[in-house]
Amino acid sequence: MPTIPDLPVLGEHDDPNSMLSKKFGREVANYFSGSPLNRLSFLRGDRDFLRQAFSYPSTAFLLMNNLDPLVRQDDPSHLAFATIADVVPLTGEDPFGKTEEEQIRDFDSADDKHPPVIVFLGVDDKAQLPSSRQVEEFAYKSFRGSPYFAVDVTPRGEGKVAVEARKLVERLKERGLEFHQTAGHRHMGLHAGQAAMYGHARALIDWNARNPFCAQCGQTTLSVHAGTKRACPPTDMAGGTVPHDRKPCATRGTVSNLSFPRTDPTVIMAVVSADGTKVLLGRQRRWPKFWYSTLAGFQEPGESIEEAVRREVWEESGIKVGRVVLHSSQPWPFPASLMIGAVGQALPGAEAETVFLGHDAELEDARWFGFDEVKLALAKGVSNLGESAPEGYVDGGLRLPPQTAIANQLIKAVVEGWWVSPRM
Amino acid sequence: MPTIPDLPVLGEHDDPNSMLSKKFGREVANYFSGSPLNRLSFLRGDRDFLRQAFSYPSTAFLLMNNLDPLVRQDDPSHLAFATIADVVPLTGEDPFGKTEEEQIRDFDSADDKHPPVIVFLGVDDKAQLPSSRQVEEFAYKSFRGSPYFAVDVTPRGEGKVAVEARKLVERLKERGLEFHQTAGHRHMGLHAGQAAMYGHARALIDWNARNPFCAQCGQTTLSVHAGTKRACPPTDMAGGTVPHDRKPCATRGTVSNLSFPRTDPTVIMAVVSADGTKVLLGRQRRWPKFWYSTLAGFQEPGESIEEAVRREVWEESGIKVGRVVLHSSQPWPFPASLMIGAVGQALPGAEAETVFLGHDAELEDARWFGFDEVKLALAKGVSNLGESAPEGYVDGGLRLPPQTAIANQLIKAVVEGWWVSPRM
Ligand SMILES: [Zn+2]
Ligand SMILES: [Zn+2]
Repeated sequence: MPTIPDLPVLGEHDDPNSMLSKKFGREVANYFSGSPLNRLSFLRGDRDFLRQAFSYPSTAFLLMNNLDPLVRQDDPSHLAFATIADVVPLTGEDPFGKTEEEQIRDFDSADDKHPPVIVFLGVDDKAQLPSSRQVEEFAYKSFRGSPYFAVDVTPRGEGKVAVEARKLVERLKERGLEFHQTAGHRHMGLHAGQAAMYGHARALIDWNARNPFCAQCGQTTLSVHAGTKRACPPTDMAGGTVPHDRKPCATRGTVSNLSFPRTDPTVIMAVVSADGTKVLLGRQRRWPKFWYSTLAGFQEPGESIEEAVRREVWEESGIKVGRVVLHSSQPWPFPASLMIGAVGQALPGAEAETVFLGHDAELEDARWFGFDEVKLALAKGVSNLGESAPEGYVDGGLRLPPQTAIANQLIKAVVEGWWVSPRM
Repeated sequence: MPTIPDLPVLGEHDDPNSMLSKKFGREVANYFSGSPLNRLSFLRGDRDFLRQAFSYPSTAFLLMNNLDPLVRQDDPSHLAFATIADVVPLTGEDPFGKTEEEQIRDFDSADDKHPPVIVFLGVDDKAQLPSSRQVEEFAYKSFRGSPYFAVDVTPRGEGKVAVEARKLVERLKERGLEFHQTAGHRHMGLHAGQAAMYGHARALIDWNARNPFCAQCGQTTLSVHAGTKRACPPTDMAGGTVPHDRKPCATRGTVSNLSFPRTDPTVIMAVVSADGTKVLLGRQRRWPKFWYSTLAGFQEPGESIEEAVRREVWEESGIKVGRVVLHSSQPWPFPASLMIGAVGQALPGAEAETVFLGHDAELEDARWFGFDEVKLALAKGVSNLGESAPEGYVDGGLRLPPQTAIANQLIKAVVEGWWVSPRM
């Protein structure tokens, strides 16, 4: 099991002249953020750019098989990348040969049912990744840097693409590469910047796989815009040479015939007691003994983040929270969450600060912990959920999530006084 | 046109003992937040609760027709509520008579195609709404307070429900009520707490209407969990008495047979110059002359909020942002956004602070404004987009969005020094 990697460091954002840094301290960059890539999102509809980027010799392909990313067998903390020669048998020579309009116009449901989804991830314009330094830098208009794509190589069914995908998996194995099993581990072992690339690719490949049909009309959709949109085409060639009209769809016409990836905002919060001496933590039944974490829950439609924090804390623990301050955020691609970290302060009074678990059945326990106990746990009781407690842990002591979890960062911020003493 | 209402005041969160308030100042509660209702989300699957709440004499129904809410013709700043007698011809006497399991088991695609969607909004447990005070308070287990539901009364097609819906719309008109046209105006005239209820109802009714089909398998889905989930049933009675198996669906079984409302996180940010004297604002071509606002854009999969802020600002304006601090948030139900407000500070140096509009075609202009000019505009140049400039505005001066927009709150925070001088 690889050790927990360092979190990304935001060197350039810690400019000594920055008044924001002086007041609010350094920005906390959570795990799964910190991608080295510039997404150049405005070029996703540019056919010429995509064609050139896809076929450039130094272009790197992040392959995913059942959402597991390709890594080296001897070093699963770094992604391994495939080349254009590896992917062409699946994708064809020129998968971006048509414009988006042409792709939609020529939609043919009789095509191989499972063409691989290809996602343009961005360019490494600061040459931060070793794989970017193989040949002369790619350039397009004013943009430079090695292009990165993700390709879904999951073999589905028995069609031509699936056969080629199985062959590719075998060939990669012979080269000492493997698809790293993520079940349960959630890739905490990946180096931070690469974890962000993996999360980006995973979120979009998973979204494409979960949305082959239009939720408005029930007909099949088509991945366009370099893997970041799905279109509901008005016609279907259906194996012939003349397009047939499909059933009408309300998403077409004046509004939009596109659907977009979803990102589910999730609130996660460290709650401080009114007197500022204790922090509220909870635990789920399936967690190891003595393991606690911050409360969390999905943001609902029609409420602010601050309201979602107060609602979730009250529903799960009975505690009434007053002021809420936003701390930092963490992309969490399982499958599509955005964790929004906050610190809340309980309202004063025994009634507001008494734990009551009877509203919701989510937590097995929730309770207040003094800062000293929490500081000890941060030093001696931190590990991944699947791992045993670290050396120095004394049985019966509080256990907490690892540094790669935003929960850990929030708890740390609270006991270190982020919320009470400005760093002027 | 009603005047702009006051923003919600978070009295109870301004406790004088609160260290969070002392450090971070008062919480900014943006328009569309501040609902008076307790959602009691954990009771949405409780059939007994829903039946009793639905049929209680003081229960109030927020009706929406084509997403326009019911209001009084003589006072469109307050929602008007219907009663159980009004809605029963559409919903039937006992729409929550079956448990969720029974609803899914008995799914029948031959049922009237458009049963109205009913959303449980919550209970007014602090009796903040006048309509809550008509009869003795509703109670269920330890929960008290008048129940509120939203019902989609949009007449669709010519079925029984549509006929009843048209009759109801007529009856309400005779009582001096109307469905307030929202197109373009976005309900800035609604009293703040009621705007939040409207936003909550709008988001869920719209989501149900946009998602009649399962995006995984293309078959029809069923609104369950008091309007907050849609299920993909394994069988269909299809007008008969014996359930037939439907096509398999990957969302069923071990994973989940449910889909959930989407909330699209959107970043919106006031960017301060490195020396802290200017703020970056941009404008779209379709806006009135001299009108500017903060930059904004959709959060993407696999990036943190802070990264999304830096990416969007660079893509839209060429400015390079360093430190980002989260400020506040605003639900924005058009159709399903969550605006996440931030303050960012540009990196120092001419290269980082030079506006360049050539990456993306979104903005017509972006430029730096000195704090004095912005302060003047906050005092004399603020109005809704569809309205003319207020009295005292001098032609050619900067115009800005109204107090009900989070953009206004962010700009205000920046020029008032929220980000530079702690309020200890
Ligand atoms: Zn469609
Ligand atoms: Zn389905």
